[in-house]
Amino acid sequence: MDFSFDAISAEEYERLRSSYEPLTDALRTLIDVGIHTEVDDETVQEALTHLQQAAALLQRRQRDGRSTLRHADTGRPVAWANPAVGLRNAIAPPMIIEQEPDGSCWSEFTLGPAYEGPPGWVHGGICALVLDHILGEVASEGLLQPKFTGTISLRYLRGTPLGPLRAEAFVERSEGVKTFARGYLLDSEGATVEAEGVFIKPAWARDAG
Amino acid sequence: MDFSFDAISAEEYERLRSSYEPLTDALRTLIDVGIHTEVDDETVQEALTHLQQAAALLQRRQRDGRSTLRHADTGRPVAWANPAVGLRNAIAPPMIIEQEPDGSCWSEFTLGPAYEGPPGWVHGGICALVLDHILGEVASEGLLQPKFTGTISLRYLRGTPLGPLRAEAFVERSEGVKTFARGYLLDSEGATVEAEGVFIKPAWARDAG
Repeated sequence: MDFSFDAISAEEYERLRSSYEPLTDALRTLIDVGIHTEVDDETVQEALTHLQQAAALLQRRQRDGRSTLRHADTGRPVAWANPAVGLRNAIAPPMIIEQEPDGSCWSEFTLGPAYEGPPGWVHGGICALVLDHILGEVASEGLLQPKFTGTISLRYLRGTPLGPLRAEAFVERSEGVKTFARGYLLDSEGATVEAEGVFIKPAWARDAG
Repeated sequence: MDFSFDAISAEEYERLRSSYEPLTDALRTLIDVGIHTEVDDETVQEALTHLQQAAALLQRRQRDGRSTLRHADTGRPVAWANPAVGLRNAIAPPMIIEQEPDGSCWSEFTLGPAYEGPPGWVHGGICALVLDHILGEVASEGLLQPKFTGTISLRYLRGTPLGPLRAEAFVERSEGVKTFARGYLLDSEGATVEAEGVFIKPAWARDAG
């Protein structure tokens, strides 16, 4: 486990974000388009050549992913790579998580066809991914404290439709090294999935308070 | 909810798979490369042009995603689009799920850097995604029966390292419309996450037996 980090200024963060975010957005489009394309094999080959050329260009200089970047201003980790919130990870919707003054968190995001399980509905495991993430974030005070999921339980109240959604989470209570968090995934008509989780401060971080 | 389907022959399935799978693999590579690239803005623009050209080619003919394809031979849904098992969804690892004669399921797959949460470890929500999927699959007899997740509980025993992993699931018991399933995510040293779930046959499918 490596919790070392390099600091990054707000200015540098914005420069990198404006350079790389369009790339991730283009990949998100390609994920959707790739699932449903019916073009002939010749056109597939042509598209494939473009993808390989893009990969070769981007591979020219690669950052080793081992250390975590943190904002110099806020001290929070920079969410580039994370599969739920990573601005540079095309797997992530991405969730942009907002912190309220009372410590609760919320996020509004859209889940499109790439996240579909049963026809028209979000895959239950994707609901679990977004809820695990936002509960973990609220339990760790916006990732300022290292906390790991101990247990999480999800109750599926009804199907979650593809489209615009909201997730919310708050801390119910803390007992020693355990933090109890609760949250919801919601569509425009209310909650579709309820989650509760227990998050644990790892032994190596317990002296740090 | 649309459970209508078009049948697809084994031959046609293989033809489509061999045509489109390299495309999805190229996108999986690009997702990883895109997270960690440090090339300059000019090179990003060049790569972006290739990605946009590939998307334009693949958009020329798109299948509408509403109906589910099923194998003419097995009757099972074809897993093209699913975010856990979809061969054509670059978000999916993909898990290839094997059915044992006793009804249990297992899958061996690799989770690389795109699935990382804490440095070096699989994101807890990704563990939840793969376990939700394999439990749902075992509860629905390989998706032959429509079943929806009612509840799922995950216990994180220790961190799950990035790399080769295995998931297993089996049905513990059934009571009326409820099926109780249990499963594990494992690395080479044993279980890292344990899951139990209750899956429910929807009302509209209850007469079909």
